[in-house]
Amino acid sequence: MLCQPTFVPVGTQASIKSLTPEDFKTIGIEIFFCNTYHLYLRPGDKVIKKLGGLHKFTRWDGNIITDSGGFQVFSLGRETDAHGKLVKISEDGVEFTSHLDGSKHFFTPEKSIQIQHNLAANYIIAFDECTPYPAKKDYATQALDRTHRWAVRSLVEHKKLNKKLKQDLKLYGVVQGSYFKDLRQESAKFICDQDFDGIAIGGVSVGEPKDKMRQAVGWVLPTILKAKKPIHLLGVGEIDDLFDFFGEGVTSMDCTLPTRMGRAGYVLTRDVTGFKYRILPIKYQKDTTPLDSTCNCYVCKNYDKAYIHHLFKTQELLAYRLLTYHNLAFMINTTQLIRNALKNGTFSQLKKEWLGRV
Amino acid sequence: MLCQPTFVPVGTQASIKSLTPEDFKTIGIEIFFCNTYHLYLRPGDKVIKKLGGLHKFTRWDGNIITDSGGFQVFSLGRETDAHGKLVKISEDGVEFTSHLDGSKHFFTPEKSIQIQHNLAANYIIAFDECTPYPAKKDYATQALDRTHRWAVRSLVEHKKLNKKLKQDLKLYGVVQGSYFKDLRQESAKFICDQDFDGIAIGGVSVGEPKDKMRQAVGWVLPTILKAKKPIHLLGVGEIDDLFDFFGEGVTSMDCTLPTRMGRAGYVLTRDVTGFKYRILPIKYQKDTTPLDSTCNCYVCKNYDKAYIHHLFKTQELLAYRLLTYHNLAFMINTTQLIRNALKNGTFSQLKKEWLGRV
Repeated sequence: MLCQPTFVPVGTQASIKSLTPEDFKTIGIEIFFCNTYHLYLRPGDKVIKKLGGLHKFTRWDGNIITDSGGFQVFSLGRETDAHGKLVKISEDGVEFTSHLDGSKHFFTPEKSIQIQHNLAANYIIAFDECTPYPAKKDYATQALDRTHRWAVRSLVEHKKLNKKLKQDLKLYGVVQGSYFKDLRQESAKFICDQDFDGIAIGGVSVGEPKDKMRQAVGWVLPTILKAKKPIHLLGVGEIDDLFDFFGEGVTSMDCTLPTRMGRAGYVLTRDVTGFKYRILPIKYQKDTTPLDSTCNCYVCKNYDKAYIHHLFKTQELLAYRLLTYHNLAFMINTTQLIRNALKNGTFSQLKKEWLGRV
Repeated sequence: MLCQPTFVPVGTQASIKSLTPEDFKTIGIEIFFCNTYHLYLRPGDKVIKKLGGLHKFTRWDGNIITDSGGFQVFSLGRETDAHGKLVKISEDGVEFTSHLDGSKHFFTPEKSIQIQHNLAANYIIAFDECTPYPAKKDYATQALDRTHRWAVRSLVEHKKLNKKLKQDLKLYGVVQGSYFKDLRQESAKFICDQDFDGIAIGGVSVGEPKDKMRQAVGWVLPTILKAKKPIHLLGVGEIDDLFDFFGEGVTSMDCTLPTRMGRAGYVLTRDVTGFKYRILPIKYQKDTTPLDSTCNCYVCKNYDKAYIHHLFKTQELLAYRLLTYHNLAFMINTTQLIRNALKNGTFSQLKKEWLGRV
């Protein structure tokens, strides 16, 4: 299990943009995140099962985690078509429309778990409904109750499949409850009472302000910590988040931001306030310093801002590769600093140095 | 100098698409080709000079060759604007319009050589006019005479700059003459009579059928071979070309095809007639064999068609990286086979095995 602070890069379609598994190792990546919704549509979970599962498919012998597909089903399906609906939720599950070709599909908790067992990552996630922000309390309550019933059904299916397929996948249950304290706390209690291997916190990175996110995580952490299980925070991972949440006991989080920002030319760094800048401005055209003055990754050891500025400005593919590489190395290295500081009792000091606050 | 068969990959904007200099070495790339026109516009030759030249800029300690800018000035400038002209040719040089922002620029032979000395590749090329195919004889004659006068001016400027800047760049003169035997032979004679370090053959990959291309090269090779200088064939490099032209005494050729084809999903291989196939068809979805059954490159040793098919179909950046890598490795390895066969006296046999003809 993921028992110490771990940042999980996202490789939605079974590939972290532009990087090879050899790069993962050099960067220090221990685990990456794949999206069940995308892989179910392309190439299909049955294809991947036939090819020996996600590890063999991607040639990655480290860990992999897949999500339930729930988040994408809802987020990509929220927009309505001419008939007003792309997602139909029932007690049994969710009917949704493929964003690729408009075809109709139906996910139940059982189906999501079956797909994930076909993909055969190390860690999988129970099927849940991620309510959008803001949500009305009536709806959030209804969705949460359904999510809890789905959690139990996910768990039953998972245990059955682990036995039947002789697999030992680990299942995370998901705490939801939108931005209502009582619902969140009810959810934390309910999910922790089930026999999940780990607890994920969902629905906290859906467009809300960051102080609300921190507040919502704060509502549930005391209960979850008592369960003494690994805690995964879904879809969160800016530099300040690493300090705020690993410091409080979260053990892992995944986020598309470092890779997505890289492809948009944003560089993670300790050199400027806010921990990021864009490589595009003309002032970097002749700048022979590395992307970050403190980073010892392959990119920072070898390249300067001038060349990467040029590559990005001319839309050269190497730009996306180098920025993806650096940003992930920066996340992983910062996480390592946090791990060490937590072990050595110097975490508060480190956090103060980085964020200027405790 | 490039004295034995060498395939030269193209890195137009000072980057071979998606690859690092470390990749160049693993692939076996010895030299790559940069385009003066593009680098003059972005980031500017003066910027690159200030940053220490192309080698330092790109971190590549192998060889680099730049072209004169002539080909792009004409090919990107051929289309006319509302006023009917984007390229104005005079005895002095060529006025052209940037394809990026519509700004006006003027290249003379001296300017082209000055830019190339600023970029400071190992090998540079005299400024020439590359006539389109087909061309009328009157125009081709006029263009050729001007190209010869420009060749002499390029050579004078080059010698001056090598001395002034204490550089030891090597200059290729360019044989032109469109598809007229007498003009081609006149040009070969004229260019070989000048004090160039090497002889390039230009204007033979401009849309003409391949048998015409082979014919045109055949018209000039006997004369050029007598000059006992390295011979570079500009813009040519399909698999059959490697055999046809290295076998006849050409020592190097550059071509964008292997990298461009890779980004379009085409795989170079010995496994099928025509030496290429596309990875996109559904039949590769579960194919666990390597891209090419004979290739020992990093991609073929580690990945299967199924995963690369998936990456390409989902437009993952890694697809372009892996296909670029394999296609270049395939070109370089085939060139190495040809080198060895020419040394060992087994070339005709090798060519017959590959092309089914001598």
